[in-house]
Amino acid sequence: MAGKIGLNITQICLAKQFSEDEIVEEVLKLNEDPRVHGIYLHLPSAALTTRVLETLKPEKDIDGISDLNIGRLVRGDLSKGFVSPLASAVLDVLEKHDAPLEGKTVLLVGGEGRVGSALQCLIERSGMVALKNNWNLEILQRQVCGFSVSDHLVHNFLSLNNVVRSCSRWIQGQQYRPWRLRSLKLQPLTPVPSDIEISRAQIPKPVNQLAEEVGLLPEELEAYGRSKAKVCLSLLDRLHTQPDGKYVLVAGITPTPLGEGKSTVTIGLVQALSAHLSLNSFACLRQPSQGPTFGVKGGAAGGGYAQVIPMEEFNLHLTGDIHAITAANNLVAAAIDARMLHEATQSDKALFNRLVPSVNGVRKFSPIQFSRLQRLGIDKTNPASLTPEEVTSFVRLDLDPSKITWQRVVDTNDRFLRKITVGQANTEKGQIRETGFDIAVASEIMAILALADSLEDMKNRLARMVVGTSRSGQPVTTEDLGVSGALTVLMKDAIKPTLMQTLEGTPVFVHAGPFANIAHGNSSVLADKLALKLVGRDGFVVTEAGFGADIGMEKFFNIKCRASGLRPNVVVLVATIRALKMHGGGPNVSAGAPLPKEYIDENLSLVAAGCHSNLKKQIQIAHLFGIPVVVALNVFKTDTQAEIDLVCEIAKGCGASDAVPCNHWAQGGRGSIKLAQAVNEAASRPSNFQFLYNIEMPIADKIRTIAQKVYGADDIELSPAAKDKIDYYNQQGYGLLPICMAKTHLSLSHMPDKKGAPTGFVLPIRDVRASIGAGFIYPLVGTMSTMPGLPTRPCFYDIDLDPVTGEITGLF
Amino acid sequence: MAGKIGLNITQICLAKQFSEDEIVEEVLKLNEDPRVHGIYLHLPSAALTTRVLETLKPEKDIDGISDLNIGRLVRGDLSKGFVSPLASAVLDVLEKHDAPLEGKTVLLVGGEGRVGSALQCLIERSGMVALKNNWNLEILQRQVCGFSVSDHLVHNFLSLNNVVRSCSRWIQGQQYRPWRLRSLKLQPLTPVPSDIEISRAQIPKPVNQLAEEVGLLPEELEAYGRSKAKVCLSLLDRLHTQPDGKYVLVAGITPTPLGEGKSTVTIGLVQALSAHLSLNSFACLRQPSQGPTFGVKGGAAGGGYAQVIPMEEFNLHLTGDIHAITAANNLVAAAIDARMLHEATQSDKALFNRLVPSVNGVRKFSPIQFSRLQRLGIDKTNPASLTPEEVTSFVRLDLDPSKITWQRVVDTNDRFLRKITVGQANTEKGQIRETGFDIAVASEIMAILALADSLEDMKNRLARMVVGTSRSGQPVTTEDLGVSGALTVLMKDAIKPTLMQTLEGTPVFVHAGPFANIAHGNSSVLADKLALKLVGRDGFVVTEAGFGADIGMEKFFNIKCRASGLRPNVVVLVATIRALKMHGGGPNVSAGAPLPKEYIDENLSLVAAGCHSNLKKQIQIAHLFGIPVVVALNVFKTDTQAEIDLVCEIAKGCGASDAVPCNHWAQGGRGSIKLAQAVNEAASRPSNFQFLYNIEMPIADKIRTIAQKVYGADDIELSPAAKDKIDYYNQQGYGLLPICMAKTHLSLSHMPDKKGAPTGFVLPIRDVRASIGAGFIYPLVGTMSTMPGLPTRPCFYDIDLDPVTGEITGLF
Repeated sequence: MAGKIGLNITQICLAKQFSEDEIVEEVLKLNEDPRVHGIYLHLPSAALTTRVLETLKPEKDIDGISDLNIGRLVRGDLSKGFVSPLASAVLDVLEKHDAPLEGKTVLLVGGEGRVGSALQCLIERSGMVALKNNWNLEILQRQVCGFSVSDHLVHNFLSLNNVVRSCSRWIQGQQYRPWRLRSLKLQPLTPVPSDIEISRAQIPKPVNQLAEEVGLLPEELEAYGRSKAKVCLSLLDRLHTQPDGKYVLVAGITPTPLGEGKSTVTIGLVQALSAHLSLNSFACLRQPSQGPTFGVKGGAAGGGYAQVIPMEEFNLHLTGDIHAITAANNLVAAAIDARMLHEATQSDKALFNRLVPSVNGVRKFSPIQFSRLQRLGIDKTNPASLTPEEVTSFVRLDLDPSKITWQRVVDTNDRFLRKITVGQANTEKGQIRETGFDIAVASEIMAILALADSLEDMKNRLARMVVGTSRSGQPVTTEDLGVSGALTVLMKDAIKPTLMQTLEGTPVFVHAGPFANIAHGNSSVLADKLALKLVGRDGFVVTEAGFGADIGMEKFFNIKCRASGLRPNVVVLVATIRALKMHGGGPNVSAGAPLPKEYIDENLSLVAAGCHSNLKKQIQIAHLFGIPVVVALNVFKTDTQAEIDLVCEIAKGCGASDAVPCNHWAQGGRGSIKLAQAVNEAASRPSNFQFLYNIEMPIADKIRTIAQKVYGADDIELSPAAKDKIDYYNQQGYGLLPICMAKTHLSLSHMPDKKGAPTGFVLPIRDVRASIGAGFIYPLVGTMSTMPGLPTRPCFYDIDLDPVTGEITGLF
Repeated sequence: MAGKIGLNITQICLAKQFSEDEIVEEVLKLNEDPRVHGIYLHLPSAALTTRVLETLKPEKDIDGISDLNIGRLVRGDLSKGFVSPLASAVLDVLEKHDAPLEGKTVLLVGGEGRVGSALQCLIERSGMVALKNNWNLEILQRQVCGFSVSDHLVHNFLSLNNVVRSCSRWIQGQQYRPWRLRSLKLQPLTPVPSDIEISRAQIPKPVNQLAEEVGLLPEELEAYGRSKAKVCLSLLDRLHTQPDGKYVLVAGITPTPLGEGKSTVTIGLVQALSAHLSLNSFACLRQPSQGPTFGVKGGAAGGGYAQVIPMEEFNLHLTGDIHAITAANNLVAAAIDARMLHEATQSDKALFNRLVPSVNGVRKFSPIQFSRLQRLGIDKTNPASLTPEEVTSFVRLDLDPSKITWQRVVDTNDRFLRKITVGQANTEKGQIRETGFDIAVASEIMAILALADSLEDMKNRLARMVVGTSRSGQPVTTEDLGVSGALTVLMKDAIKPTLMQTLEGTPVFVHAGPFANIAHGNSSVLADKLALKLVGRDGFVVTEAGFGADIGMEKFFNIKCRASGLRPNVVVLVATIRALKMHGGGPNVSAGAPLPKEYIDENLSLVAAGCHSNLKKQIQIAHLFGIPVVVALNVFKTDTQAEIDLVCEIAKGCGASDAVPCNHWAQGGRGSIKLAQAVNEAASRPSNFQFLYNIEMPIADKIRTIAQKVYGADDIELSPAAKDKIDYYNQQGYGLLPICMAKTHLSLSHMPDKKGAPTGFVLPIRDVRASIGAGFIYPLVGTMSTMPGLPTRPCFYDIDLDPVTGEITGLF
């Protein structure tokens, strides 16, 4: 149905006498039905009472009948071939708007198709409309709750102009318009208050107002409270012909353990672009895990005067996507263990009788079972016709307990679940095994949510997920478990991005938040795609990659852009004087400990050394992909002007298109205007995007390419386990997947304490794993923790809620 | 602030010249601010430009200024003691509505209080208003973003009538009105289609329309998509003086393992009351666990033509309340294990330094730590002044690993998590222990959600939850862990009930769903309270209790009504011919197996025997509490007229006020009209509600009272463990809590196969546990499973989603 514009006009006609109450009832229903864009009251004049006319909503009234006095209505006959005034008026409108509708299907829904058939007649006779404009007219019949076509067409010929006007308005509404964004004013205070105080001091616009400002239709929005809404994917169809905006990636230099503020730069940049330069722009952010919010990290909604608001809604639950992922992930886990138990305790026959039960005496395979039969090469539809061998291979997934790769998840920092033994109750009959929980955002389902580009694509990816291996070495999928349809059902709302706003009232999509080591660490393809349509040709979508550019940006290009087909225009590389001094040879920086004085006092030589090592290398990495780089120096209050100037000068010397200091944290968008101008300038230049490696290269060569070109390694060293896995993946046909390196983010190398731009090392690949549904191979460089812990005094000690005012304290 | 009606009128005044842009900006903000009900443009006439006037939303314009031409405005002075026309008009309105406002605070918010001070003068002078009506006038000052009072009052005297009209309209809007409910028409098909087909064939009303119909204000609603919304608890304040409606409990006789349809009876009854008898009515239902939806049970949204729609939204995620409970429950679990690890590996001093860290050289206790200090009897505020012994008792919860009662939860049927060992990773340093997961709805937090009657009450209950015992035998609470504030934050939205609708467009609250064995099995106190206000004096709230009347109803009366203070008017007791035949001596009924022929063919003697045993006993149980009973016979297509007549006759003979057959499953509300009439009739009779036991009785006596009077036992037998626990609870001061029996629902006794009304048995109490936050003691009669499993072929095999249409299949 791609390309359909769905001009949905419903006609109410009568086959027999209905009471006024019944007609009013029907009109009221259609008034509120968001799928119906217009109503055409095709009724005998006696039925067109004042009450009926007054019931019809003016905005749905496509021929202006509700404005008119009954006395002025005239009656006419509709015989075959007669072109109704409605039909010709609709055509007239479509004709006037032919350019943006080219190649589109126009869907007309009628009581019993008189509108449609009249239209069809017109087209058949004239030929020109359908042929000239290449329209695919799809005439659907819809029975409207017992009402059907009348013998008489009642129509007011005087109202033709209204048809034209209504339709024009509607069609214009379908198209992109420059935003009329009302930004929220900021009056930054000094010193900068706490994040939650700043967030609470700003009243967000109602989300439906924001949605309207950025060109969303009411039926494309599903509000979740007053300040969040999910946006329907149908928008992609509606704005199909709309050119994409400019696509900007925010990445960072190798960070200190304190983080260098990529999120605040992202938010400050869109605040500057939208609220200060009046350029349409959207930020696309990852949804943070709730675990660290209560652990050590706090929130992730930006900070200072560059935040997403309300920050507590951003950080807690949001619209339930991570909860949906948790539910889906754990349903798979429960299905795995229950299936192993049932296989261990039942005969083939008993399993078959239960899996394909006799319902009213008939046994039938379910659709999901046909998929498994197909994979097994069994081309039969009658369950009774399976041979005993076929029954065995159908009913026994025969999972090898030691080769199950699927873990359970919770969105809580629960370190005691890292390694556990399950199945110890008597009811599980001794089927114990060791396994573990990851934090929810480490689930492969999160990576899928981030990479899927449609509901169908998500469904297919969810079905392809491999949960383990059978004793005979065959991969076992969620579809084999019969659970993949249910997973799609659990994830049906999660696939819609969530609309929120910045402190300055500019739009933000929050969607997906996969890990940046075992997954690709980028927000969703769909949010970016929706945003690129909404901002339009001259607008900007600013999206953020996790960790440093060597990891997040490399995966953004090689994995996310490969999946989406999108091509970025600019990379914003975030740096801080603090991190540059560290790379230049400054002492260790660690969370909780006071900063050494090198980081507080001016030190130009450390800054210069850091710029010439890590910053330079990260700029070069972006250039490998052919994309211009703007360096954004996130200014702290201890930075001196000489330090700031030095960074900007060296960065430009290293090939950055521009390098500018940003003060968004203290000043909001106003503090990022220079960055916004630099990005706008860089985006106007041509870029020559290219992938780093050809997807058809052998797995080991792809890993080596990343290690050498991006990390600066001399070579890679594969462990025997890694070699075996690569052979196995090749044999299973997974060799064509891109690579998702699981490496520390604290160094360009695999050694967290090697700062700057290390060289002369060999990258050790300890193991190689695969996320088949998400669609990548992930080599493990060192050990990755997929479950954070709680410290002695977690953040939750300070988090509280005043039950009288409802205000939350202690979130930051 | 209870009792405040919050007439929130904002005045915009000017202290200095502001630009037109700035004034428009301010008006736009107030236009959209849901907390502001009216705006009074208190500006010099020069500032009242056409643009400013056009900006003001007519519905917020309290003196009609936006309708008027600037030229017609007159200018006047406001000197002390002068009664402004606005003030007198407001008073005039309040005066006219004095009855419902009696005892209320009227909140007037003004730029710098001129409206307020004028009003105050009037009251001081006349005396009569404040004294006569007992108003508590609360005059608040509000500085509106830099705007403050002007020297001149600009007001159009002609617009006084508008003030009166606006205020009248607003105040009327605050009060209860009979509903103007537009019901959705049903056209039931034969044979009855699947639940999801029926659900999908009906287009629900937009939830904001439904909300408006039942008297909710837009600002009391938080939409979650188009067909669900959370309702704010502020409604209870607004309708404080509104009398409650009639309160109806739906309970059942002892069921077969197939269930006897209490939910469908509940929904059919409100469909009949609202849509057919035009009596305001609300159903209050439990939110089902998602686990069984994918396991064996399917959905819980009713069935046939008595359903909550959209049924897939009811059954999946809903508005995320269970997910919030899961997150809160598991944060407690993570906090317990992490704390034990940190205590095991750190000295007192290290623990103290981390728990009370030095921030910028200052150590301070957080508020939650003061609560712990208080419980420990340490009355100090300076951390440095604690003695070493006090430090030890403060930092060491000293949890006994073998006495931790807190379990983790998931909302998935994951049997392998029933008993597990956690902490097996090296990072946990050997601190392994055995524990388990329950299904999420078994969490004590769910029971708290169901029993809390305000945000503050929930917060206090969450803080009181006992998670285990210290080695010295002291209970350890979530507040001791420092986590209770965070729990409240996680649960802040879950406390608001979710509004949905039945197939006939009548309102439903879905809220909370605690287990009916280890908890009390009833939906939330808050949903019932909100609904009782919304339906008004002559309306009905129909709520459902889990399991049979011996369990769900007993707990409804003794636990839920005790917590809420609400008094029920009628019990509807649901019976089926199938269950009655079973109690009359029919063969076993079990899920999955075909029904024996006794249940398909007419068998009057089995029916009669079932009525005289179980049905009679359950009626008597309701009468113990002084409440009239209407028996609702849920008719199946195999039931004969003679069987139906027999049940109704015997039921009335056993003391039921009435007994009627119901056909809601096949016919919707129309099939339950007789039941609705019988309930309406029974509710008009006086009831003499009384609790079964005095809360001050000893724990064992309370248990014995339930066992003897409700179950028909001769006595109880306490195990030694149970006796010890009772002693311990008495010693801890928990003796005054009500009792929540954890007993099988398949028999009145503890033996599931004893049908009818068993006598001559002694009820064995294996153990006694306590949910201190929820506020009850729960004796265990037998073993309760708190984690369901998945069968060989779970429901999920048939659940799927069409990615093109978005339609879900296979839910039932």
